[in-house]
Amino acid sequence: MSEDFSKDPYNWDNLQGWRSYRAARPFRGIYYDIRRRLPYYWSDIKDGFNYRTFAGTIRIFFVNLLPAIAFELDMERNTGGYFGINEALFSSALAAVVFSTMSCQPLTVVGITGLISLFNYTIYHIAVQQGIRELYPQLIAWVSIWAAITHWLTAIFNWCDYMRYITDFSSNSFGMYVSIIYIIKGVEELVDQFNSGSLPGGYLSIVIALSYWFTVQALEGVGDTSLFRPWIRKSIADYAYPIATIFWTGFSHIPGRIENTDLLRVPHTRAFYPTVDRPWLVDFWNLPVKWVFVALPMGILLTLLFYYDHNVSSLGAQEKRFPLKKPAGFHWDFFLLGCTCFIAGIIGIPLPNGLVPQAPVHTDSCTEYTDRLVTSKEKDDDGDAEEIKHNKKTIIAAWVAEQRVSHFLMALMFIGTMTGPLLVVLHTMPRALFSGVFFVVGWLGIPGNGIAQNILYILSETRFRDPQDPRQQLSRWRIAYYLLFQILGVGFSVAISQTIGAIGFPVIIVALIPLRWVVMPRIFTKPELQVLDAPTADSHVVLASMGGKPEMPEITRERRTRGGDVESGESSGVSSGVMHEGMRSRDGGEEKEDEEEGKS
Amino acid sequence: MSEDFSKDPYNWDNLQGWRSYRAARPFRGIYYDIRRRLPYYWSDIKDGFNYRTFAGTIRIFFVNLLPAIAFELDMERNTGGYFGINEALFSSALAAVVFSTMSCQPLTVVGITGLISLFNYTIYHIAVQQGIRELYPQLIAWVSIWAAITHWLTAIFNWCDYMRYITDFSSNSFGMYVSIIYIIKGVEELVDQFNSGSLPGGYLSIVIALSYWFTVQALEGVGDTSLFRPWIRKSIADYAYPIATIFWTGFSHIPGRIENTDLLRVPHTRAFYPTVDRPWLVDFWNLPVKWVFVALPMGILLTLLFYYDHNVSSLGAQEKRFPLKKPAGFHWDFFLLGCTCFIAGIIGIPLPNGLVPQAPVHTDSCTEYTDRLVTSKEKDDDGDAEEIKHNKKTIIAAWVAEQRVSHFLMALMFIGTMTGPLLVVLHTMPRALFSGVFFVVGWLGIPGNGIAQNILYILSETRFRDPQDPRQQLSRWRIAYYLLFQILGVGFSVAISQTIGAIGFPVIIVALIPLRWVVMPRIFTKPELQVLDAPTADSHVVLASMGGKPEMPEITRERRTRGGDVESGESSGVSSGVMHEGMRSRDGGEEKEDEEEGKS
Repeated sequence: MSEDFSKDPYNWDNLQGWRSYRAARPFRGIYYDIRRRLPYYWSDIKDGFNYRTFAGTIRIFFVNLLPAIAFELDMERNTGGYFGINEALFSSALAAVVFSTMSCQPLTVVGITGLISLFNYTIYHIAVQQGIRELYPQLIAWVSIWAAITHWLTAIFNWCDYMRYITDFSSNSFGMYVSIIYIIKGVEELVDQFNSGSLPGGYLSIVIALSYWFTVQALEGVGDTSLFRPWIRKSIADYAYPIATIFWTGFSHIPGRIENTDLLRVPHTRAFYPTVDRPWLVDFWNLPVKWVFVALPMGILLTLLFYYDHNVSSLGAQEKRFPLKKPAGFHWDFFLLGCTCFIAGIIGIPLPNGLVPQAPVHTDSCTEYTDRLVTSKEKDDDGDAEEIKHNKKTIIAAWVAEQRVSHFLMALMFIGTMTGPLLVVLHTMPRALFSGVFFVVGWLGIPGNGIAQNILYILSETRFRDPQDPRQQLSRWRIAYYLLFQILGVGFSVAISQTIGAIGFPVIIVALIPLRWVVMPRIFTKPELQVLDAPTADSHVVLASMGGKPEMPEITRERRTRGGDVESGESSGVSSGVMHEGMRSRDGGEEKEDEEEGKS
Repeated sequence: MSEDFSKDPYNWDNLQGWRSYRAARPFRGIYYDIRRRLPYYWSDIKDGFNYRTFAGTIRIFFVNLLPAIAFELDMERNTGGYFGINEALFSSALAAVVFSTMSCQPLTVVGITGLISLFNYTIYHIAVQQGIRELYPQLIAWVSIWAAITHWLTAIFNWCDYMRYITDFSSNSFGMYVSIIYIIKGVEELVDQFNSGSLPGGYLSIVIALSYWFTVQALEGVGDTSLFRPWIRKSIADYAYPIATIFWTGFSHIPGRIENTDLLRVPHTRAFYPTVDRPWLVDFWNLPVKWVFVALPMGILLTLLFYYDHNVSSLGAQEKRFPLKKPAGFHWDFFLLGCTCFIAGIIGIPLPNGLVPQAPVHTDSCTEYTDRLVTSKEKDDDGDAEEIKHNKKTIIAAWVAEQRVSHFLMALMFIGTMTGPLLVVLHTMPRALFSGVFFVVGWLGIPGNGIAQNILYILSETRFRDPQDPRQQLSRWRIAYYLLFQILGVGFSVAISQTIGAIGFPVIIVALIPLRWVVMPRIFTKPELQVLDAPTADSHVVLASMGGKPEMPEITRERRTRGGDVESGESSGVSSGVMHEGMRSRDGGEEKEDEEEGKS
């Protein structure tokens, strides 16, 4: 079944004349995406019948549901109650049904993110400022319709190819930005407990949020120890979210002091009805033409956001460290995302797209890991004391359950959650718990992030650094200088998100890409960039859908100055491995091409 | 300067007739203690002038002061306000002055413990029950006088020698018991915030206590990383308590919501006066004779407690892992403890004695550690992937600042704290912070405790266990069976501490010693006991003061059954090393005698 995708027929190299223009050959990317993936459809179902799929379903359901509700609480507060629980669940269910059955990349989980929440309530604030608060439903519907149209155009004209130019420079900044926004949301949710609830309720909420965070971290940490039998410690890690959620929800109902402290809880709504009194279909045709056109730039900004956010999420779900065998399909999936934007837009639910910090979680929980014994001989630096130690090393046991069953089951669970009895269950949950969820999910993207890893690296004492670390070749100050650009990017994005200009933040993130391609090669040398940065799309199964590997600008520069004696192509697979090391031990083996390049 | 204390003239071996009876030769232990230690007095001062002494002073001052205040709050609540802040500070200062200048073991820090708090308020409850609440000051004074007398007798008749029969079996149980009591006290302090304070104040207190705990752990943890230069990370770890204390005290005063939440704070008292309106000298001569004799058994129980508690604390401060060169002196120090009991008793302040979970902290912070680079070659269990890793290993840099300067400076700081201005500073501290202190100090004794280590060991997966671990020879069930005795001992002690019979708990702890010497050798085999248990007094500098190493009962048993062909003496130094490994990496090198024994 293992095909070689490095020679995929979809590419734009060596083409002449009109054939080399992407816009001139519409639907080419979508066509190849479908042709490449369709043969795997049956195996996508067949490969789903195993225990890992089940564990993966539970884990991804909670990692998707809990933040979705959390963002919904945030949106509800900031949009005058327009978007509520039912809208959030409907949107997640819609996305899960569509993407589990029809997408090329069923491992990418699509749902409600913090950025769409930010987007929706910023538009609400603008509407309020412009005095058209009552037109908000129609306005946001038109933003979505324009977004849908630009999504379709992007997919049809093969522009998803440009995703291959995204490097860790911007995607790490984006990941860090998203994590920080999540944590800020967690704090805002706690602050709201004080504002909308009571003083003791506020403090109790802090206790619950911090304890929830600690509980999930500790339970997931059990998987990394060598306690108990492997299946027991893995189960504890797999079910960390449901265990913590049930425990702390129960805790919040302990009779006496705790129950009498009036904690805010998830609001109770009527199943299958919109939160505000309206029909599901928004009367978008009743928006004055002037505002329809005001919605256009907002729609384009939204497309810019989703272009980056959704595709980076797909890349996260298909990272090189997972030994994936089935091909990706960015064009088709982005077309599909246009469809969900359209449907979600006209029925007035938040627009779903790819989840970023949670992106690798689904693939990770569908991956069969195994614990290996590693014997190490320790030598003191004076060379005399030798000690033999036994350690545990967790490695990927050669396969990932690449399938659409867990995603589909998750869709069914979302539909189940939308029914009356389960809405009652949701109502028992304290809102404080969602602050904890924000902290957990936000933190998920921080320790493994390249920016965090580089900061820790430059702060660490020189002699204890890993001798194989390629960063050893660079000076500490050059790394700090490189980091400065990323930190400024993250800082500006976080800052603008706190203002009425928040919907402009995708521009800053996307601006990091030309910064990397045009400016950075003039400031940093080729070896520096090769160590510190690498394309985010780094495996052949993924690159096949984007027309193959691009040539990095520092290589192009060198070729042009030296006169073409340097091979083209990406060559810093090593650093890319280093960046992701924080999450789980990497699987070793770089690809042949990289090695050959390293010699040149 | 390095003397050999394995051939100390003070011992009772090979003596005949009346000379072999300890009670027949009073003052012999005290005499030898002084003779052994006095020559080091000048070096005890001289060796104190270095940076480690300074860092050690700050650390031990906070680790001593904060729990002392915490226990005082507990005692004050439970003794109708008789024991207050001034009494606690006076007691700590008295102990520090006496023991820093006159003791044989200036590394052992003496102060207010949780057990004396428990003791004092249990006697208060008994007094209330008996309707002699107004006689409580005189009663407790007489308990102290009797305790002082029995302390002196114990020291004079050389009974501290019996400390050498204490093994990790009981001292680990005792350590675990003390840690659990500390944590319970922390929770009780928080509960009191709800009872005596307000609901929001209670919840805010939980937030502060947990955050304080986390802050101290995190700052101390920085010392174990390889971040920053060595002196920076060590300073952060050294000053973790003051940093966390200042930060969270400041936090509790942030204007607005936090300051308006009425947190309970340390009570404000008049400097140098007793908390209740009375002269410092208690009129103990006004107690009816009947009650004087009721105080006798209580005094004996107190002596039993201090005998165990104080001496185990001295052992903790002089553990084998520290390369100490100056001799111990148990008899003289216990005599001195009798004196502080007497003084403290007649002026109505809580009786100081050796601090248990904090015992190794002083020595540890006077120890110069160094970070070494350890290179390890990792081998996967399939044998192919070899990787070289650089790790940090912290080892003792060959010396400990064995001196009495840090202890004496701490005494001066206590006296300073007793003055008006610093009492005002204490008053700004929220009581919640002391719950955090209880959690930190209680937790201090848990991860490295032999019971916790053995529980983790039997729960861990077999193949990842350290191949050099001597427990590998034993079956999991035998270790669990052994643990059962310790856990029952801890459980009963904790349970009785919650009742009016609390003052009887030293009996349970001390009863573990005959259990170990008489019963355990009949249940467990010699190799089992050698691996799982070892004498707590395990270095020659310490054993010199106790008449040398005792023969373990399992050895005696074997010798008797086989007819004397087995050598006598302790032989499980290895396991003793394992037990303490949790705290810092051990210094390797067992002593020659042990190795020779291993061969026999």
